[in-house]
Amino acid sequence: MTAPFSSSAPAAADMPVVRLKPKANARAIRHGFPWVYANELVTDRRTRAIAPGTLARLQDDARAEMGIVAVNPRSKIIARMIDRNPAAKIDLGWFEDRLRRALALRDRLFDAPYYRLVHAEADGLPGMVIDRFGATCVIQPNAAWAETHLEIVCAALQSVTGATCVLKNAGGRTRALEGLDDTAGVLAGTAPARPVEVPMNGAIYMADLTGGQKTGLFYDQRPNHAFVAGLAQGARVLDVFSHVGGFSLAALAGGAASALAVDASQAALDLAAQGANAMGVSDRFTTRQGDAFEVLTALRAEGAQFDVVICDPPAFAPARPALEAGLRAYERIARLAAPLVAENGILGLCSCSHAADLAAFRTASVRGIGRAGRRASLIHTGFAGPDHPQLPQLAETGYLKSVFCQI
Amino acid sequence: MTAPFSSSAPAAADMPVVRLKPKANARAIRHGFPWVYANELVTDRRTRAIAPGTLARLQDDARAEMGIVAVNPRSKIIARMIDRNPAAKIDLGWFEDRLRRALALRDRLFDAPYYRLVHAEADGLPGMVIDRFGATCVIQPNAAWAETHLEIVCAALQSVTGATCVLKNAGGRTRALEGLDDTAGVLAGTAPARPVEVPMNGAIYMADLTGGQKTGLFYDQRPNHAFVAGLAQGARVLDVFSHVGGFSLAALAGGAASALAVDASQAALDLAAQGANAMGVSDRFTTRQGDAFEVLTALRAEGAQFDVVICDPPAFAPARPALEAGLRAYERIARLAAPLVAENGILGLCSCSHAADLAAFRTASVRGIGRAGRRASLIHTGFAGPDHPQLPQLAETGYLKSVFCQI
Repeated sequence: MTAPFSSSAPAAADMPVVRLKPKANARAIRHGFPWVYANELVTDRRTRAIAPGTLARLQDDARAEMGIVAVNPRSKIIARMIDRNPAAKIDLGWFEDRLRRALALRDRLFDAPYYRLVHAEADGLPGMVIDRFGATCVIQPNAAWAETHLEIVCAALQSVTGATCVLKNAGGRTRALEGLDDTAGVLAGTAPARPVEVPMNGAIYMADLTGGQKTGLFYDQRPNHAFVAGLAQGARVLDVFSHVGGFSLAALAGGAASALAVDASQAALDLAAQGANAMGVSDRFTTRQGDAFEVLTALRAEGAQFDVVICDPPAFAPARPALEAGLRAYERIARLAAPLVAENGILGLCSCSHAADLAAFRTASVRGIGRAGRRASLIHTGFAGPDHPQLPQLAETGYLKSVFCQI
Repeated sequence: MTAPFSSSAPAAADMPVVRLKPKANARAIRHGFPWVYANELVTDRRTRAIAPGTLARLQDDARAEMGIVAVNPRSKIIARMIDRNPAAKIDLGWFEDRLRRALALRDRLFDAPYYRLVHAEADGLPGMVIDRFGATCVIQPNAAWAETHLEIVCAALQSVTGATCVLKNAGGRTRALEGLDDTAGVLAGTAPARPVEVPMNGAIYMADLTGGQKTGLFYDQRPNHAFVAGLAQGARVLDVFSHVGGFSLAALAGGAASALAVDASQAALDLAAQGANAMGVSDRFTTRQGDAFEVLTALRAEGAQFDVVICDPPAFAPARPALEAGLRAYERIARLAAPLVAENGILGLCSCSHAADLAAFRTASVRGIGRAGRRASLIHTGFAGPDHPQLPQLAETGYLKSVFCQI
């Protein structure tokens, strides 16, 4: 499906033209909204025949040029704005420019090359996610145009960052909506044979880039990990849904007396233990494999108490139909976790559910704490880190929220 | 108006009783809402005669005890929940307990004793704010009961923190609503003769505790200052509405190439310059006194460019009637500041307006940036620091929001 370089950079004049219906919200698009929905576009036979991922010129219903879009007739998001300059040439230099701009922000933010380098729309590369792990980059092409332009993106990425290895991760939830398969692969260089050591907030994480969840490590929680590291001195810390030890290893780096990581995945816990070992804090780190709800219940029966408890579950409400059940699950987590927090300790609750907004998530969390007979004082609200920028016009990209309470 | 110790700790049985009307939201109060509004309370002659700041027992309309409240018949918030235990004795030990709990959180969060020690309702001391500057504490009694209990609070504060000087700041905007005067004073010890050096985020700030705005220093922006410090390496920084140099000195501590602080108050700028001097960064720090709107306009005319621009204005929309005009002012700030930001630089915009919620403030800011012909990518949203906790039931206490964009 990967297109050769030459066809990736057609002159604007040679591109197909797609046109908005009169009812489309052309004003919103002009003001920065980056998507055209299928019901907003004139989808005649010619438009329906456009191959997914093809670049086209977008016109409004009066045939005024609006810019260059990537078209996917199979997706509800039928067109994504690529460049508002209708004469732009989407060639290697164009991709290099976008990547350089993304890199400039991360260079400003971070001391070491471990971050999300490209966060899709807000970095000017719609539907494309790139995580960087030193000399290795992992691309998630979550839209058809990202898939058809993989080769040129890979070349631009190598030239801008000097990456020696580029991997493709096809695990993104939205790929199916774009009609894309789930085949991962190596785009350049040789995949690292073992987990990569990632320094973050003073901790060392082991990122398994070929076998792990997502891209092997969640960079999005970095500032929230840092917040916990900052209050962990001398604390007994419980990290539920720990994955590779995100909060627990940061807490140990911050001087925690002990940290217990709980996860359903033994593979993730093994990576967490390797990270603790690399940090030289294995004596303060323990893990417990199992279902989080069951482990929380068991810990209570055992009379366990912690100064800091963090629960960072998977998305219980990824989409609107799951919202009510998801909020109940968040409330249940809070209710089960609160009794494990020592008097005046800290409880941190996270949600990566698109459908649950901050107010709804906070209400569910506070209700769960209340049902455990405790009262909450909110001390911190955190979101995804600054290497996960958002377009102001796409509130949906603000999926991650963390609420920290003294209880 | 200060009551003697003995009368500050009446037995619950000796307290007056106040009673909710049937239409009052007793359920909300039971679930944690800390206030009773005047129209929710039976205000017979006896209740109207209660001296402002007196402790009383609150009963629901069926005469069930709900806890101990502080009553102020002159305020729209006629009663504030002090303790949900109707038999609690509000004596020196009670205040010490509350302060110890507040202190435990700050000890967990900070290395040095410079922080907001008590943030009113969420710290269990309604209408009472206490900022700590090393051995000096500044109390803002913003509710009548805080005023009538000043002496016992001062004693508890000295015993729990070891503070040698306690000042009273009567500048709080809400004091007038409680029928309180604006007389500041020294409650214990001797007021510092010169500004206190406050270490924060690697910077040194000069807090003028007897002459300054508010309590001489804003602790609430600490995490947002830290965010700017983290991206300031090598940057040219503009700090508009700088007060004593909050963002600019943090940026210099973070390695900024230069910082320009703009404020209407020459006194504030002088303190900022003293801070820069104490940090040894005077060669990279300049100030400019003047109206922020005029200075922004002038800087543009001069062709000035900065890598990082922060605008942290006073509350343009402190209350609902000022909301529309306030949002226009925020938009104008964004429109004037955006052209001063170099390509792909960072613009940080702050609001401390209760009436403007995050979404409204963000929309106004993004609109202003758009009207300046720039596009924004949101990289960070920040709130007041964790030494400014909130009750979940009082969304109003979440006044501060900061939005950082790459533009």
